[in-house]
Amino acid sequence: MKKESMGVQQVICMKGGVGEGSYARNSKSQAALLSKSMPLLEQAVLDLCCTTGTLPESVAIADLGCSSGPNTFFAVSEIMTIIYKRCRQLGRSPPGFWVFLNDLPGNDFNAVFKSLPAFHEKMKEENGEEFGPCHVAAVPGSFYHKLFPSRRLHFVHSSCSLHWLSQVPPELLNKQITNKGKIYLSKTSSPALIDAYASQFQRDFSLFLKLRSEETVPGGRMVLSLMARRTPDPVSDESCLLWDLLAQALQGLVSEGLIAEEKLDSYNAPYYQPYTEDLETEIENDGSFSIDGLEIMVLPWDSASGGQNYDRPTTAQKIAKSMKAVQEPMLASHFGAEIMDPLFKRLIEIIAADTREVEHVSVLVSMTRKA
Amino acid sequence: MKKESMGVQQVICMKGGVGEGSYARNSKSQAALLSKSMPLLEQAVLDLCCTTGTLPESVAIADLGCSSGPNTFFAVSEIMTIIYKRCRQLGRSPPGFWVFLNDLPGNDFNAVFKSLPAFHEKMKEENGEEFGPCHVAAVPGSFYHKLFPSRRLHFVHSSCSLHWLSQVPPELLNKQITNKGKIYLSKTSSPALIDAYASQFQRDFSLFLKLRSEETVPGGRMVLSLMARRTPDPVSDESCLLWDLLAQALQGLVSEGLIAEEKLDSYNAPYYQPYTEDLETEIENDGSFSIDGLEIMVLPWDSASGGQNYDRPTTAQKIAKSMKAVQEPMLASHFGAEIMDPLFKRLIEIIAADTREVEHVSVLVSMTRKA
Repeated sequence: MKKESMGVQQVICMKGGVGEGSYARNSKSQAALLSKSMPLLEQAVLDLCCTTGTLPESVAIADLGCSSGPNTFFAVSEIMTIIYKRCRQLGRSPPGFWVFLNDLPGNDFNAVFKSLPAFHEKMKEENGEEFGPCHVAAVPGSFYHKLFPSRRLHFVHSSCSLHWLSQVPPELLNKQITNKGKIYLSKTSSPALIDAYASQFQRDFSLFLKLRSEETVPGGRMVLSLMARRTPDPVSDESCLLWDLLAQALQGLVSEGLIAEEKLDSYNAPYYQPYTEDLETEIENDGSFSIDGLEIMVLPWDSASGGQNYDRPTTAQKIAKSMKAVQEPMLASHFGAEIMDPLFKRLIEIIAADTREVEHVSVLVSMTRKA
Repeated sequence: MKKESMGVQQVICMKGGVGEGSYARNSKSQAALLSKSMPLLEQAVLDLCCTTGTLPESVAIADLGCSSGPNTFFAVSEIMTIIYKRCRQLGRSPPGFWVFLNDLPGNDFNAVFKSLPAFHEKMKEENGEEFGPCHVAAVPGSFYHKLFPSRRLHFVHSSCSLHWLSQVPPELLNKQITNKGKIYLSKTSSPALIDAYASQFQRDFSLFLKLRSEETVPGGRMVLSLMARRTPDPVSDESCLLWDLLAQALQGLVSEGLIAEEKLDSYNAPYYQPYTEDLETEIENDGSFSIDGLEIMVLPWDSASGGQNYDRPTTAQKIAKSMKAVQEPMLASHFGAEIMDPLFKRLIEIIAADTREVEHVSVLVSMTRKA
C-alpha cells in the first residue's frame, strides 16, 4: 500500500463521538437519502427472497462505509426486517443474519459497538422475539481492498461513500498537475485535472466492482448510492459549488496569513462526483453485475436543515455544519485543528453572502451478481 | 439478556489505550502464558493441516477475548504462520485466512484497528509477499452468546479470558448469600458461596462449549487457556490469595471512610478459577469435543515483572500494576474512579508487607470438534 493512500485512509472518516459537531448528530442529509432510497432497496431485497430457491440458514449482509451514528444500522435493519417479514408472509422459516459493518479503520467503531445492545433490542421489538439470530461483525478497511473471502455475501449495501476516492489523483500528489487555490474541480479546471479526477474514479470504481463481484454469491444483490451528477459536464455547479465555496474560505485564511499558500495548493479532495451514465458504462464494462434499477435522487439545497424553510444565513450555518461533520478530520489533518473554527465561520459567511442554490444529486443503483 | 449480565459485560474489559497504566503496556504475564502455550497450540494447528484432506480456500480463525494491545494478534499470527509454512513444506497451496477478533463491546477496538496496518505488514514480512489474503473482522459481544452462524470456524482460540464469568453468581446479586468484606472466594467462604461460584462457572463453561460446538466445523480445533487450580480445594491460596489482598485493600479504604461498607459488601468478582479435572469433566459431559491435550502452566510469583528477580516491594508494585490494568474498569465502575489511586497504593503496601508467594496457575486444553 502506498504512503499516500494510507494517509487518505486514515483521515477519511466522519467526525466521531456523539458531540455537538459529530457526524452522528449532523447526518440529516444522509438520512434523507437513505429514506429516499428505500423503494429500490426494498425491491432488491424482495427479489433476493423470491428468486433464491431457499435462502441460506444465515444471510450475509455487508454495509460498506457504515460510519458511526444513527445511520449506521439504518439500512441493515431495513434489509433484515424486509427479509424477515417476507419469509413470514410466505410461510417460510426466516433465516438468521450475519451483518458486516465496514468502514475505514479510523471510523469510531467503539461508538458503533456501544449502540449494539440497543440495536438488537430494537430488532426484536419490531419483529418479535423469534427474530434472529443476528450476528454482527465489524470489518475495518478500505472497500478498495478485498474485505471478505470469495462468495460470502448475499447482500451488499453502500450509501454516501463511493464518491470518496482511494486517494487524491496521483498526478496531483506528484505535482505533475497543479490546482492552485482550489481543492476540487471547478469552472477553471484544466482538461488534464478533469482527466486525472475522472481516471482515478474510473480506476477506483472498477476495482470496487471487481472486488465485490468476487465476494458476492451468484444471484446476490448490491445496492449502491453515491453523490453523482445529471450532466456530463464535470464542472457544473451541481457537483462543484460547495467545494468552490470551501476553497474560497480557505483562500480567505491564506490572505489572513492563517494558512500558508502552499498548504492550500497541496490540498485536494479525494472525491469525485461521476455522471450517472458513466457509472452504468463501468458496471457494463465490468460485466459481473446486471443493473436492475437506477434512480437519480435529488435533495433540496437546504436538506441539511431537514428541508425546513430557513432563511439564507440559517441554511448557510446548517450546510457548513454538515460539511464540517464530514470533512473536519480530513481538513484538520492537513491544515491543523486550530484553523477549523475560523474556516467554518468564514464558510458560513461565504455561503450566506452567495445567492446560488444547488440541489444535492445522488444516484442509486441496484444490481444482481450474475451467475 | 438480563440487566445484571449486561452490566458485567460493559465493564469486564482491560484498561484501553496505550498509556502508562493500560493493559496494552501491562500484560507481560499474559504474554508469558501465550508463549508457554505455543507447543500445544502448534500441535493443534499442525494436526488441523494434516487431518483435513484439503484446507478450505479460507481458514476461519476466531480469537475469543482478544483484548487490545501487543497480545491481541499474537495467537492468530502464530496460527496463520504455522498453517502457511506447513502448507509450503508440504508443497500445498496455502489457504487465505478470515480472522475474527472477539471481545466485549467495551473493548478498545479502535486501538486494535489502528494497529491493523502494522499487523498486515508484519505477516508479509515474516511469511513473504504471497501470504494471504488475510481478512480481519471484529466481533463485539460476550462469548457466552452465539457469535457466529453455525459451522463457520476452523480454529478457535481463547487465552486468559474464560475465568471471567458471564455474571456474578445470582445468589450474590439477589443477596440470598453475602460475602462480607470479601470480593471472591476465601478461606472463610461458606459452602453456599463456594457452590454459587462453582455453579455459575459450570453453567457458563458448559454454555460456552455448546455455543462453540455449533459454530465450529466438524474436525475444527479449539485451544483454550484460562486461570485454574491444581487442587480440588476452591479456597487454596493458589486461586484466592491475590483476591484476598485486594479485598484487604478495599477494607482499608472502608476504615478510612473512603468507601461505604455496603459498597464493598455488594462487590463480587465475576471470576472463577476452576479445578483442571472439573474442566475435563465438563468437556466430556458436553460431548462435542475430544480432548487432544491438556497442560498445566505455572508462572512464578513475580511473572508480572517478566520473571526478573526483584525485591518484594518492587514485585508488589509490578503485581499491583498488572492487576490494575485488568481490573480497573470493573472496580472504577463500582467504587468510583477517584478511589483507584488510593486503592492500588494500599494494595502495593499490603502485598509488600505480606510474605506469602503463590504461583500463577493456568490450564491449556486442546480439543477437536467431533464429526
